[in-house]
Amino acid sequence: MKHVISPLDLTVEEIDRLLALADDIIDHPQAYAHKCAGKKLATLFFEPSTRTRLSFEAAMLELGGSVLGFSSASSSSATKGESVADTVRIVGNYADVIAMRHPKEGAAGVGALFAKCPIINAGDGGHQHPTQTLTDLLTIHRHKGRLNGLTLCLCGDLKFGRTVHSLVRAMMRYQDVRFILVSPDELRMPTYILDELDAGGFAYEETDSLEKGLAQADVLYMTRVQQERFANREDYLRLRDSYILDGEKMKLAPAEMIVLHPLPRVNEIAPEVDDDPRALYFEQALCGKYIRMALILTLLEQAGGFEKPCAAQICTREKTALPARVLEVLQGADPAGVQLPERIVNAVCCKNPHCITTTEQGLAQVFTLADADKGTYRCLYCEHEYQA
Amino acid sequence: MKHVISPLDLTVEEIDRLLALADDIIDHPQAYAHKCAGKKLATLFFEPSTRTRLSFEAAMLELGGSVLGFSSASSSSATKGESVADTVRIVGNYADVIAMRHPKEGAAGVGALFAKCPIINAGDGGHQHPTQTLTDLLTIHRHKGRLNGLTLCLCGDLKFGRTVHSLVRAMMRYQDVRFILVSPDELRMPTYILDELDAGGFAYEETDSLEKGLAQADVLYMTRVQQERFANREDYLRLRDSYILDGEKMKLAPAEMIVLHPLPRVNEIAPEVDDDPRALYFEQALCGKYIRMALILTLLEQAGGFEKPCAAQICTREKTALPARVLEVLQGADPAGVQLPERIVNAVCCKNPHCITTTEQGLAQVFTLADADKGTYRCLYCEHEYQA
Amino acid sequence: MKHVISPLDLTVEEIDRLLALADDIIDHPQAYAHKCAGKKLATLFFEPSTRTRLSFEAAMLELGGSVLGFSSASSSSATKGESVADTVRIVGNYADVIAMRHPKEGAAGVGALFAKCPIINAGDGGHQHPTQTLTDLLTIHRHKGRLNGLTLCLCGDLKFGRTVHSLVRAMMRYQDVRFILVSPDELRMPTYILDELDAGGFAYEETDSLEKGLAQADVLYMTRVQQERFANREDYLRLRDSYILDGEKMKLAPAEMIVLHPLPRVNEIAPEVDDDPRALYFEQALCGKYIRMALILTLLEQAGGFEKPCAAQICTREKTALPARVLEVLQGADPAGVQLPERIVNAVCCKNPHCITTTEQGLAQVFTLADADKGTYRCLYCEHEYQA
Repeated sequence: MKHVISPLDLTVEEIDRLLALADDIIDHPQAYAHKCAGKKLATLFFEPSTRTRLSFEAAMLELGGSVLGFSSASSSSATKGESVADTVRIVGNYADVIAMRHPKEGAAGVGALFAKCPIINAGDGGHQHPTQTLTDLLTIHRHKGRLNGLTLCLCGDLKFGRTVHSLVRAMMRYQDVRFILVSPDELRMPTYILDELDAGGFAYEETDSLEKGLAQADVLYMTRVQQERFANREDYLRLRDSYILDGEKMKLAPAEMIVLHPLPRVNEIAPEVDDDPRALYFEQALCGKYIRMALILTLLEQAGGFEKPCAAQICTREKTALPARVLEVLQGADPAGVQLPERIVNAVCCKNPHCITTTEQGLAQVFTLADADKGTYRCLYCEHEYQA
Repeated sequence: MKHVISPLDLTVEEIDRLLALADDIIDHPQAYAHKCAGKKLATLFFEPSTRTRLSFEAAMLELGGSVLGFSSASSSSATKGESVADTVRIVGNYADVIAMRHPKEGAAGVGALFAKCPIINAGDGGHQHPTQTLTDLLTIHRHKGRLNGLTLCLCGDLKFGRTVHSLVRAMMRYQDVRFILVSPDELRMPTYILDELDAGGFAYEETDSLEKGLAQADVLYMTRVQQERFANREDYLRLRDSYILDGEKMKLAPAEMIVLHPLPRVNEIAPEVDDDPRALYFEQALCGKYIRMALILTLLEQAGGFEKPCAAQICTREKTALPARVLEVLQGADPAGVQLPERIVNAVCCKNPHCITTTEQGLAQVFTLADADKGTYRCLYCEHEYQA
Repeated sequence: MKHVISPLDLTVEEIDRLLALADDIIDHPQAYAHKCAGKKLATLFFEPSTRTRLSFEAAMLELGGSVLGFSSASSSSATKGESVADTVRIVGNYADVIAMRHPKEGAAGVGALFAKCPIINAGDGGHQHPTQTLTDLLTIHRHKGRLNGLTLCLCGDLKFGRTVHSLVRAMMRYQDVRFILVSPDELRMPTYILDELDAGGFAYEETDSLEKGLAQADVLYMTRVQQERFANREDYLRLRDSYILDGEKMKLAPAEMIVLHPLPRVNEIAPEVDDDPRALYFEQALCGKYIRMALILTLLEQAGGFEKPCAAQICTREKTALPARVLEVLQGADPAGVQLPERIVNAVCCKNPHCITTTEQGLAQVFTLADADKGTYRCLYCEHEYQA
C-alpha cells in the first residue's frame, strides 16, 4: 500500500485494518493527536471540492501534522502548462504525503508513477474517489456492525454515479450482500456492473420505485439526479420527484435503515429528513475525516520504496511494434491464435476525451491486455477500454 | 453567547469582558500562545476579504490553534449549489469554530441555525460585520480609556456604510455620546437611525463640512465615498475632495483626536496623514487581531449546547395560515384590533433581493413581529421589514 | 539585511553564510524543526505560483512556524483597489515575515518601504526573483563544491529570462567564471549585460548551438523558448527543437555537468532526461526549500529597526523643481556642466508600463541619478531608466 488510487487497490484485510484504526481513533483521539507531528500533507486540488479538501486537512491537523497546497487550478502553476508529473515530483520535495484531485481520469495514477511520496487519489474526474468509498464503508460498518449480509438500496443516477459504482464493487468483496437498484430508465446501472454482479453470484433487482426499494433496505444510498442527464426538461421534471427522499417516503422505510449520501446534495433529500435519526449523511462526512486520518497515518508509517518511482520503467521513446494480426484484433477481429503483447506502448492513443493523456505532456500512451480471450486492452491511466 | 451574528447580540457586559480580555492578551501574549492548541478555526469566505480573513487566521494561530477553510466561493462547493446550511453542518465536523463571510444578508444567521459549533459572522453582505464593530470599540477604548462621554465624527457614505451604522448603534449603549454626521446630502444617515438617536436622547448634528465636523471630535471615523453612489460623475467629482482627509484638514483637528477607518481605503485619506500620530487605522487592524483572539477564546470556552441546533424548531413544511385581516395589515392596513401572529412561516417571501432566502434552498421563509402597534414584520435572516 | 528585494541586495559574505546555513539545515533538519515556533509567514501572492509559494510554506513549516496568506489576487482585497503599501502595513500586524509575489515591477520594493517586518521578494513581474537565484547558487555549490572557476552554459530565452539575468549578475561576483550563451538570434542576451561582462573582464561566448555549448559546460542552465517571443510561427517551429534538451544531446555533455531549470518546464527538456543522474532540476526545487529556510531564519533573527519604515522619508507632497538645463539632460542633452539633482521626486513619471507606479495609488514618483556622466536616472521601484 504505497499509493491509494482506486478502492480496489486495497485488499479486504487492508480495509479491515483501516476501519479498525478509524474506530480506535474515534475512541481515543488524544492518542493520535501528535502521531504526524512534523509531517506535511499537500492538498493539490486542480478542481475545487470543499468537503473533500477540508476533510483531508482536518484529518492531518488532528494527527498533529500540517497542511499546504492549492484549492483550484487557477491558483496553481497548472495555468502555466506544468504537467501533473512535474507538479507531483516538485511537491514531493515539500510534503510527506499528497492528496490530489484532478478533473482528468487517470491523473492521480500518473502522479503515483512519478511521486517520491504516497499519493491519495481525492477524485480523478469520473474515474475513482477511493476515500469516498472508504468513508461509506466506515459509516455502514459503524452503524450496522458488519459489511456482510446487508441489503443496499442505491437510488438516483446509477449510470454516471462514480461513488455508486465504487461502492457496489467494494461491497461485492463481502458475503451475502444484496443490491436494490432504483433509478429512472435513462439512468440505470451500466451493464458491465450488472455483469460483475451476475458473475459474483450476487442477488440484485432493478426498479424505478424508491418506495418499493427502501422498504427492504438496511442501507439507502441516495445520489443526485441531474437535469442535464435527460434529453428534455419534461422527462426530468416528471421523474425528479420520484427520486426525492422526503418525510413521507421515510415512513415506509425500516426503523433500522440508514440513509447515506456522498454530498453535496441539491434537492434530492428534503430538509425535513435531516432531523430523522436514520439520516446519517452529515455523520458520514465526519466518518470521512476519521477514515482519512487512518489512511494518512497508515501510508506515512509504511512509506518507503519511493527511491525509484515506477515511471522509470516506462520509456517515453519506446514504441511497441504492432504486427498486422494484432492491429486486426484491436479493430475487432477474433483474437484466437494471435500472440497478443501484454502491453502496447506509444502505438495507439486513448480515445477517452477525459483521459489524462489528452492533456499531460510527455506521457507514454500505455495499454495493458485486459482480456486475452476477447482481445481487449485497457488504458493504463483511465482504465477505459481501447476503441478502434 | 453561542454565536456572534450581530454586534447587538452581545450585552454591554459581554463587550466589556471581551475588551478586557483583549487588553490582557496584548499585555501577556505568551500566556495565551497555547490556549487553543488542538482546536481548529474554519474560515469560510464565500467572498474574498484579505484583512478580515488573515486577521482571523492570525488570531487563531497566535492562540496556538490551526486554520482551514476557503477564501472565495470559486474554490468552494458553493459552485455546486450546496446550501449554507449543509456547508456549515459538514464543516462543523472539521472545525471547532467557524468564521464566515457571505455576500447574502442573513447568511451567517442561517449558519447559526444549523451549526454544531460557534459561528462568527465575518460579514454578511450589507447586513452585519460584528468583529469590525468590536475592533472599533477596542481601538477607541484603548486610546480614549473610555467609551462614555465621547464625541464621534463619522464621515463619508453614511447612507450605505454598514460599519458606520453598526458603530452608531453600538455606541448608543454608552452614556453621553455625541455624534457629528458628515456626508454629502446624497449619502446622509438613514432616517431610521436618526430616529433611534432621537429616541435614545442622543445629541447629534448633520453637516456637509468635514472641517467643521472634525474640529470638535474625539474620534474621526472615515469611510469611503464611492462614485457609483452618485447619479452623475460631475456630482461625484465636485463632492469627492470635501471628504478626503489630508494634512491641511488634520491641522484643524484636536491634538487628541484619533482617526479610524475600517479599510481598505482607496483615496479618502491622503498618504501624508499616515505618518500623523493621530492616524490609527493601521493600529486598528492590529486591534482587530486581538479582539478576534478574545472572541474565539471566549466562544470556545463557552461552547456547548449545540446538540440540537435551533433549525430543528423551524419546520420547512409548516405554513402559517393568514386570515384576511392579517393580510390587510401586511398590505398596510391599520393593525388596531387585529390578532397578529408572532411569527409567519412560509406564507410570504422576503422582498430584499440580497436576502439569503433568495438563494438558499430548503430554507423556511420566516418573519417575526417587529412592532405590533405598527403591524410590521421583519425577516428572521436579513432583518429587512416585510414589504407588501 | 532587513529585506531581500534583489539578489544583489546581499553581499557575497551574506550569500556565503546563507549557503552554509542551508547546508547545515540539510544535514541537521531536527536542529531547526522548532526554530521559528510561534512565528508566522505571510505569503502574499498577487499572482499564482505553486512552486514558489509551496516552497516558502514548506520552509516555514519545517522551521516550526505557521503560514497564512493568499494565492491569487482574486482572493485578496487587491480586487477592492487596496494599495500594496496598505496591504503590507496591515499584514505586518498579522505576520512576522512576508513573502510577496506581484505582477508589477518594483512591487516588493514598495512593500519594503512601508513594512514593519521583513519582506522577501518572491518575484515582481519581470524584475527580480532573488530566492530563485539563491536556489540556483545553492544547487551549484552543493554539486560543484564551489562557485569560482565554473563554466556556465545558459540556454534558451536569454533576452527576457529574468532568472538568467539574475544568475549571470550573481555569478559575476565570483572568480574565473565563464559564460556560454546559447540562444536563437532573436533572444540573445541584452547588450547591457554583455557590457557588464566586458567591464568585469569575464570570458563569454555567444552561440546558437546547444550541442556546442554544453560540450564545455560545468553547469547547463535551461530556460524556456516561448512561441510568443517570435514574430511568426514558422521561425518558432524551425528553431524550437534546437533548444530542446534530449537524450541525444546529453550524450555530448561532460559526465560531471549538471542540468538546472527554474521550472515549470513545458517541453524544453525531454522526459527521458529526467532519469539522467545529471538532471538536477527536481533536486533544485528541493534546494529552493532549504535556502528559503535559511533566509527566513536569518531575516527573523536579524529583524529589527522597523519602527520607522523608510517610506516616511519620501514625502508624497514633495516636488523636485527641474531647471530648464536639467530638463534638457532628461531629454538627452549632454550633462556636462549641469548640476544634476541626486533625486527627482514627483516631477516626471516612469514610462515602464509594468512599473508598480502605474497602479499603486499615493506613491511618489522617484528617480535616482544612475550615471552622472551620462545624465541617466533610474526609477526607484522598477529600476528602469528614465525615458523622455
